[in-house]
Amino acid sequence: MSLNLRIALDAMGGDDAPEIVIDGASLARERHPDLQLTLIGDSAKISELTKKYKNLSDVKIIHADDMVAADEKPSQALRHGKKTSMWLAVNEVALDNADAIISAGNTGALMAISKLQLRMISGVTRPAIAGFLPTLRGLCCMLDLGANIEVDERNLVQFGIMGASFCEAITGKQNPSVGILNVGEEDQKGFDYLRLAGTSLSHQSLNLNYVGFIEGSDIVAGDTDVIVTDGFTGNVALKTAEGTAKFFMHHLRQAFQSTLLSKLGFIFSRGALLKMRRTVDPRYYNGAVLLGLNGICVKSHGGADSIGFSNAIEVACNLVKHEFIPKVSDSISEAEKVIQSKPE
Amino acid sequence: MSLNLRIALDAMGGDDAPEIVIDGASLARERHPDLQLTLIGDSAKISELTKKYKNLSDVKIIHADDMVAADEKPSQALRHGKKTSMWLAVNEVALDNADAIISAGNTGALMAISKLQLRMISGVTRPAIAGFLPTLRGLCCMLDLGANIEVDERNLVQFGIMGASFCEAITGKQNPSVGILNVGEEDQKGFDYLRLAGTSLSHQSLNLNYVGFIEGSDIVAGDTDVIVTDGFTGNVALKTAEGTAKFFMHHLRQAFQSTLLSKLGFIFSRGALLKMRRTVDPRYYNGAVLLGLNGICVKSHGGADSIGFSNAIEVACNLVKHEFIPKVSDSISEAEKVIQSKPE
Repeated sequence: MSLNLRIALDAMGGDDAPEIVIDGASLARERHPDLQLTLIGDSAKISELTKKYKNLSDVKIIHADDMVAADEKPSQALRHGKKTSMWLAVNEVALDNADAIISAGNTGALMAISKLQLRMISGVTRPAIAGFLPTLRGLCCMLDLGANIEVDERNLVQFGIMGASFCEAITGKQNPSVGILNVGEEDQKGFDYLRLAGTSLSHQSLNLNYVGFIEGSDIVAGDTDVIVTDGFTGNVALKTAEGTAKFFMHHLRQAFQSTLLSKLGFIFSRGALLKMRRTVDPRYYNGAVLLGLNGICVKSHGGADSIGFSNAIEVACNLVKHEFIPKVSDSISEAEKVIQSKPE
Repeated sequence: MSLNLRIALDAMGGDDAPEIVIDGASLARERHPDLQLTLIGDSAKISELTKKYKNLSDVKIIHADDMVAADEKPSQALRHGKKTSMWLAVNEVALDNADAIISAGNTGALMAISKLQLRMISGVTRPAIAGFLPTLRGLCCMLDLGANIEVDERNLVQFGIMGASFCEAITGKQNPSVGILNVGEEDQKGFDYLRLAGTSLSHQSLNLNYVGFIEGSDIVAGDTDVIVTDGFTGNVALKTAEGTAKFFMHHLRQAFQSTLLSKLGFIFSRGALLKMRRTVDPRYYNGAVLLGLNGICVKSHGGADSIGFSNAIEVACNLVKHEFIPKVSDSISEAEKVIQSKPE
């Protein structure tokens, strides 16, 4: 399959936009020279910046007068949104001018704008935010990270299907294991809807590698590839992991600065420690995806650097190449049959 | 106030019982020679072990034929429970032969047995499991850690009151700050019952230092002393923090072993790193407490060492000295007035 993918970039979203977006676009072009890029935002700024990059001479630029602010409420963004770079970037996918859109802007606004313009995959009742976390055995995919504070059996089953396909697309791992986050591994633990979702996810017609309930401590242990949960718990768990990582790095720095000997020790270990830092810090794993929409929409961290932003583009490319949306659509119909066939 | 406290110890609970329990008891006696200790369990084993410690010659021993298994369901433990060391240890508090009970055994069983024998503080609708976590600015108290997977406004308000008093008793900090765990700091985020609980907790008649909503990343940041949440989210957050800490230590070990230079670096930094380890690892903070019961009941980590177990005894002593139960009882009545006076 040719990599003749068409990608729309919200050039104005993120802490250091448009610089980081354009630098990230150039990095992605180095990997995939045939990538068709459309940059949406302040056209004067964008065209001046792109001049610095040889491999961005042919990008398409769409001018947007306005942009969505980082602290804007989704409802506000929807009201004044139609002239923003985010709206117009998503619109490129809605018009089938692009295969995917990437934005480092306001997550809530991106979800609201994308839901309105792209609509949902047929049968999907709720979209979810999915992302990857580093674990002791590679990456694990977790969803929902905050789109839905409450979910039901059907939502969790759909999250399991979408998460497994997302994980396959990004890590290349066939038949990834899927678990439901709970307060214990035993069957009687937690809420009824978790048990119901578990029964459906283990139904053979869904062809999923469902492994049962897992606990908070299992997330980074890495035995489970896809972790399914409601957006409240997922959001708290992700932020707790990020906070703990930060806390650790802080104490590690302090430990190395505490004595003359430990300062010397740091000089010797510096290379290995910096390498470790990139492995363990969840903030380095960029590219959360809004799954369930009828179009590929990737949310880059607002504070991501250009390598991070180019990784988010890579995530989008992999989802398009994996034919994520048609594959998931088929599985969702199958899941509806499973859920509806169950005795009440 | 004299430290003439009477403490009942379930000698058979925990991974390395009764050895760790007895060694921990001896350590506690070193700090508080006038502590009155009762050890409950296999009397032959206990009396043989206590012989090794000079400062345990006068402890009281109560024989128990049976013990609660680590994997036993609470309902099972209640059925066959009356001859277990856990039951008889809790019974000492119920009979007012002891001021507090400490067990490193099965948490669910301890909760069920304690609830049945000690009952609840008047007005408290649900007991909570509370514990301490290390943060960038000292310790923070989090509850509920798993007793109640669902809670309502009233439960959260009561958790706030009990958590603040618990935090004061253990850290000595006056008027600790209290926050509710949520998916964002803004008022419109999360569930309605979180907002209602926030309004009640900020009511001036409760005299609490309520600071609003906090996020997962704020837990270890340490700006909030008491973090209130439901038992599902609290359990996942605690275990995620513990798992992330373990994950970090693993990668740190690997980094130091990766090159000859980094190995040398470790030798220089060893002292500072071991010190850091005790600061950052949440597993070292021992002594979760079952709050809301009409008696002091402390749950030690099943895998705690004797220093850890003696810390759990210290936690119990501090709660008794702080007059936790009468103080909380008064505040709970005040909170009932606040909740009932609100317009529907």
